[in-house]
This record gives sequence, structure tokens and C-alpha cells, in this order.
Amino acid sequence: MKRGNTIFFKKPPRVRSYAAICGSKEREGVIGGYADITLADDMYGESTYEKAECKMLSGAIRLAVEKGALTDGDIDVLFSGDLLNQIISASFAARDFQFPFLGLYSACSTMSESILLAAAMIDGGFARNCVAATGSHFASAERQYRYPLELGCTRPPQSQWTVTGAGACVISGEGGGIQVVNATLGRVRDWGISDVNNMGAAMAPAAADTIMRHFKDTNTLPEDYDMIVTGDLGALGSRILKDLTWEKGYDIAPNHVDCGEIIYKVIEDEFQGGSGAGCSAVVMNSYVFTKMNAGLYKRVLFAATGALLSTVSSGQGESIPCISHAVEFVSV
Amino acid sequence: MKRGNTIFFKKPPRVRSYAAICGSKEREGVIGGYADITLADDMYGESTYEKAECKMLSGAIRLAVEKGALTDGDIDVLFSGDLLNQIISASFAARDFQFPFLGLYSACSTMSESILLAAAMIDGGFARNCVAATGSHFASAERQYRYPLELGCTRPPQSQWTVTGAGACVISGEGGGIQVVNATLGRVRDWGISDVNNMGAAMAPAAADTIMRHFKDTNTLPEDYDMIVTGDLGALGSRILKDLTWEKGYDIAPNHVDCGEIIYKVIEDEFQGGSGAGCSAVVMNSYVFTKMNAGLYKRVLFAATGALLSTVSSGQGESIPCISHAVEFVSV
Repeated sequence: MKRGNTIFFKKPPRVRSYAAICGSKEREGVIGGYADITLADDMYGESTYEKAECKMLSGAIRLAVEKGALTDGDIDVLFSGDLLNQIISASFAARDFQFPFLGLYSACSTMSESILLAAAMIDGGFARNCVAATGSHFASAERQYRYPLELGCTRPPQSQWTVTGAGACVISGEGGGIQVVNATLGRVRDWGISDVNNMGAAMAPAAADTIMRHFKDTNTLPEDYDMIVTGDLGALGSRILKDLTWEKGYDIAPNHVDCGEIIYKVIEDEFQGGSGAGCSAVVMNSYVFTKMNAGLYKRVLFAATGALLSTVSSGQGESIPCISHAVEFVSV
Repeated sequence: MKRGNTIFFKKPPRVRSYAAICGSKEREGVIGGYADITLADDMYGESTYEKAECKMLSGAIRLAVEKGALTDGDIDVLFSGDLLNQIISASFAARDFQFPFLGLYSACSTMSESILLAAAMIDGGFARNCVAATGSHFASAERQYRYPLELGCTRPPQSQWTVTGAGACVISGEGGGIQVVNATLGRVRDWGISDVNNMGAAMAPAAADTIMRHFKDTNTLPEDYDMIVTGDLGALGSRILKDLTWEKGYDIAPNHVDCGEIIYKVIEDEFQGGSGAGCSAVVMNSYVFTKMNAGLYKRVLFAATGALLSTVSSGQGESIPCISHAVEFVSV
């Protein structure tokens, strides 16, 4: 069923199992304590950052499948993507498995896009179990999007720190105490921000658009949710989001949490907090789902945001088009 | 419903409308005569190749929606992706429209992945009309994946020529005489090919895997199809595909057609033929669907293939993981 831009699942699929792997900086924070594996060395025994990123993603998928008491033969589709050019982390991770793979690109909103498509495939009757997964690595993202780390460039205060980590969950027709009840599909929003160091400001309008359409389509209010989680707006982007929604009559401040704001212990080098596809992937697939399973949060709206730029588009003077896909979870 | 890796649609969605735009080299061939718009100048009035690519994609989407007698408000989701880093063509094209956008990356198999997801969303009851679209541009692909055109590098004989073009179709619950009856989801196959100039050889095993699983899951044989269309294996890759399937007892040669083999008039600079996400997007959304609507082909299996490499993965010594998603069309 569909109302506005929100799709409602007839028999809500479940988050059957989930897993997260995160890096050394991430292990120092609160979230790190909820991850399945935390790395002492972000190279993860590999020779390149990209291979380390792929290994984390593949490992998170493997763990999620195992924690769901499933084997590869039980998985019908893997929905995955990442930040690297041609989503090589996801494609090479998919090579490790025998199940089908549908590649996605939605930048840092990949976690919500993959979950919503997995849930739609299951509720549509086309699959029994799907894996939704994504990840990122600070060092591979820095050198692809910004500068070689060896240059030691100064980071501006509005910048964020790309999370080293990966998360995966198995979405199933049965099993697990968390339902995926509906999803609000994102539209591309572009308010003309062209500062590639200020992703929070660029993405906040997309988050506001999707979250407010979600309230409208589902006939709910912010206070109906125990938590409204955004992916990686960071501290500045979160403030903008709260202002934008408040202006339209929605006060999300009391129960808004941004994964980028909570993933690191100390905001120092990270300035506005964490970012990257791995940011919400790690937080959702460790802390949030664990707290939901424990009954601490019953109803959670998860709206991850993605900045759909490339170094080429920015170099050609384009602003940053952004998107946000939202998924609503209810623990039962 | 699902059997093996094939999903079957309960009430097969329709190809309600379709549109294709192609470049100057493509207009010279047979296929060019079926495209809606052919460019006299591949810059398409833009200042960069990337912007020209985006304009073609946006234009094809706009045309397909109009040809389906629909407005933007009737479209529930756009499924799109392309070859450029961070799929900027699709993301920036999506900025031109007010409907939701789900970004995909599946290299040159984006056309079949987008159609299968669109059909699943419709048959699952989550959408009424979806657009599936992709495209590519010779010049933007060359400079991203290979060398600056200005260098005038010699191309090896096993290489292909990236198609300048875009195609889009509206998949709907009703309207249009072509049904999307089922889809076989691809798995990543990697036979260790690392020659980035020989995509046909790298992708053929993925096509063979998906096509043969399709025959098995649907209990059909090659002769049951009027046409078995691959996306852009080119001449060499097509020969390898025919050998691989023949070895397993399937003779697809009599009715196999590769979009890359038929898109250009003269195989000269293009060597093995066309490639790129735009290759099958243009051929399917002009020639094939038109011939199906005219009753010339009744049952068509479309298996597009994608090479999931990046310049980074190749530079780090990796081989080329490939994938193929197949969709079966029946004209009614």
C-alpha cells in the first residue's frame, strides 16, 4: 500500500539479525561497545584502505547471516552499496557470497534505501530473507573525495569525519522482534549548497523534506516516536534540520538523535561528528537495534541522508543534490 | 513468487511507454532510426560531457513519462543509475523531477536491474508507475575509466566503444502491450579476467550463469524465446557466451542478439561493438520494444551485464567481478 511517498508493508518484515564492525576511533565511543567487532588497526590486515573497507562489509554481512541462524542458501538478495567509485566495496564483498546482489548508490543514505528495498521485496512475496548492508572507511573516503592523508590538510570546522565501519542486517518474513512497518521514499533536494566540507547543511533540507512527508503520510507527530534518527547530519546539520522542521510546526528536538553526533566520544578532530555510509550502518546495526530489542525504544524513525555529489560535479561548479530515505521500525 | 533466483510477477506489470536519445555515431546505425531524439552534436549544447550525459538521461525520462500520457505526479519512483562516479548523471537528472528517486549502481546492467525493481515495486503493490532509466556518454566514460581523449591513445582490438545515449521506460500496473513477466537476479561472477579492455570476456560468464539459471527456474529452453538479448558483450563476449552456454547443452546462437553488436553501422573504431549502460538502454527502449509492440517479437529475454570494476580496483591488481540481471518480456 502507498500513501503520498510512503509505502506501507502488509505484513511488516522483521529485522531478523544485524551486525556491525567498526574501526579503532569508533571503538572508543559509546557505540563501539555495541559493535560485534572493533578493529585495533583500521587496515584490518589488508594492504589497502579499500580492501580493508571491503573486508569489513563482507564480514558484517557474514556475521549478520550467521547471527540470524541462516546459511548463504537462505539469502535471496543482498542489497548493498557504498561511497567508493563504482561501489567496489559492495561489489567485491558480494563476490564472497553465492546469493544474488542488487547494487545501490545512495551515498550515506544507503542503509535506509537497502532496508526499504529489502522489506519491499519480502512483503511483495519475492524473497524470504534479504541482507541490507553498507559501510565506509575514513582513509579511502578522504583520498577519493578530498586529499591524500599524507598531505595533512587542515580540516575546516564545519567538516565531519567519515566513519570507518560497516553494518548489515537480515530482513526476513519472520524472526526477530523489530518490524519494518513503512518507508518514505526520498526526493532529490538541492538548496544550492556547494561547500563540500559542509555536508550537514546540504543534506538537512532533504532530511526535513522526507521526515515531514513521513509525518503527513503516516498521520503522526514527532512525539509519536521514541527516537527520530538521522544518519550523518552532524552537529551543525542537525541544528539546521531542527530549525527547518520547527519552522513548519514540527518540534523534533526532544527525540532527535543523529548517528554522526553520537558515534564519537570526543568531538575534536571530527568537528561536527561522524559521516559516511558506515555511520548510520554501524549505529543502527549495533546500538539502536539492540536497544529496540531490549524494549528501550519501541518506535523509531530512521532517516538516513545522502549527498549525491562527486569530485567531478563539484569541480564543474555544481551544487550538492541530496536525498533522504526514511524507514519506520516498531519493536514487538 | 520465487523459484531459484527468479521472481515471478503475479499480475505482470507493463512497459507502458519508453524513450531513447542517442548520439551522432549511434544515429548512423539501424538502431538510431528508432530513437526519439538523435544528437547532431554529442555535447548536446552543454559545456561538459558529464552535463550532456545528464541532459540525455533527464530528457529520456521526461519523454517516457510524456509518451505514457502521464505527468510527474503519476510517477511513484525513479530507479536509475549510470557509470559515472557517484552516479552523478542519475542523481542530477533526478533533481529535475519532483518524484522519489532510488539510486542504483550495476554498471551496464542498470537497465535490467532498474526494470526488475520497478516491476517488483508495482507487483508488490507499492507503486502504480515507476520509471527505469540509464545512460552513458562515450567521452565522459573514456576520461573517467581510461585516458583523456586528447591523448589519442590507440585502442586494442578487443575493446568496445561506450555508447552515447540514454533510455527510459515507464513500468506500470496497466497500459502498454508488453508484460514484464519475471526476472532472474544476478550473482557476482569473477573468472579472473583483469584486462580492462576486454569487458566482453569478463562479463560473458555472468551472462551465461544468469541465462542458464533463468532457463532452469522458468523451465524453458532457448528456442522458447524469439530473442535472447544481452546488453553489451560485444562480438567477442557474445562468442564466449554462446560457447559457455553451448557447453552446458543450451544452444542460444540462433536467436541471440547483443545490443553492442547491433548498435553501430560499421565495426571500425568500435572494434567489438558498443558498450556502456546506454547501450542496452537505447536498443531496448527504441528498437526492441517497438518491434515487440508491432508483434514481431513475442517473447524476449533481456540479460544485461555489468562489469563492477573501478580504476582503483584495477590499479590495486584486482580482477573484474561481473553481474547480469535478466528480465523476461512478453508482448500481449
